[in-house]
Amino acid sequence: MIDSIVFETGDLKAMNPSFRRNLINCLSGFKGANLIGSINKDGGTNLAIFNSVMHIGANPALMGFVLRPLTEQRHTYNNILETRYYTINSVQYHFMKQAHQTSAKFPENLSEFTEVGLAEEFKLNFAAPFVKESKIKMGLELVETIPIKSNGCMLIIGEVLHIDIPEAVVAADGFVDLQQAQVLSILGLDAYYATQLVGRMDYARPGIPLKELSLS
Amino acid sequence: MIDSIVFETGDLKAMNPSFRRNLINCLSGFKGANLIGSINKDGGTNLAIFNSVMHIGANPALMGFVLRPLTEQRHTYNNILETRYYTINSVQYHFMKQAHQTSAKFPENLSEFTEVGLAEEFKLNFAAPFVKESKIKMGLELVETIPIKSNGCMLIIGEVLHIDIPEAVVAADGFVDLQQAQVLSILGLDAYYATQLVGRMDYARPGIPLKELSLS
Repeated sequence: MIDSIVFETGDLKAMNPSFRRNLINCLSGFKGANLIGSINKDGGTNLAIFNSVMHIGANPALMGFVLRPLTEQRHTYNNILETRYYTINSVQYHFMKQAHQTSAKFPENLSEFTEVGLAEEFKLNFAAPFVKESKIKMGLELVETIPIKSNGCMLIIGEVLHIDIPEAVVAADGFVDLQQAQVLSILGLDAYYATQLVGRMDYARPGIPLKELSLS
Repeated sequence: MIDSIVFETGDLKAMNPSFRRNLINCLSGFKGANLIGSINKDGGTNLAIFNSVMHIGANPALMGFVLRPLTEQRHTYNNILETRYYTINSVQYHFMKQAHQTSAKFPENLSEFTEVGLAEEFKLNFAAPFVKESKIKMGLELVETIPIKSNGCMLIIGEVLHIDIPEAVVAADGFVDLQQAQVLSILGLDAYYATQLVGRMDYARPGIPLKELSLS
């Protein structure tokens, strides 16, 4: 038998805040590692790492991310409201430290691109900056901001207008081999992981034994 | 140079729906692998795999997940509305196939626990069933259902009331070593991944070189 701990509501309320923040941030599981690039109306750029980018729908192609409460300046959010366009760029191992360093609280007049040493890339006639070092990039337009009443966070939803991706990692059925693209995963607030495929499963049907799919 | 493909809005609209579903589902990155356990007012249980469980906040401890549009029966959602309580259980390698098989469309009067061969566990005085095989389990109470107007999905938010977790995987600072707990990650709709830590980063500060944290 494994020794297990049980935390109840009362334990959570009484918990050291930093311990609780680490614990709860880990429990939902592994997350995507993405940099959001944005620009204000004066051309000042911003780059910030997010571990909350999520798939919302495929048609229209929608991505969401969770914004913490507006109790402090949120440069990414302000920029997106001002100019409506932003980019989502996957994080690879070779620039993991620069990516994490974007979470430092830089003053608004400094660009994280310059401060951490990642390159802005303007292309595809798109208003917001992509991250040149990133292998998988999306350009999005804001479509919906949804308040989460329970804790003052917001779910920000954008429509994917551009996708820029290495041809070699897109399988014949549309699956994207992020392991081959060396995209990292985040756990909690600060841990970065490489991944190893253990199996791709066929569409499940009642009473039919599950088959594994090949990757390509 | 790597050959890259660019998909624009028009390409996405014209794309084969199955190709588009795989592509867009992969682009947000790696996701958590979780089973949601629920029960209706007559005691019928339900178990369903979700790749959209996300951290919403630590205090109060809140988790969200995305529910597809209500154009077909959503047993998990109906149960949660009826009884308000549900469980989130992490997916490990040794029951990955059973976990994926819960995505088959079983009739409402059958329980996925029985159909796929996972064990219901009622404990901690909690109304909803946990998954006995799972190492990391949470019991939640529904607190908010949020419509996403852009595509008819919903964000379902619950407060974490119970956490049941092996003591050995909780670090002194609250970080949870999900790799050691053999928790899998999902990519897209159907691919399961093991993970390998590449580094845990210290809290980032402007102008200060980033340090790595130890795991324990």
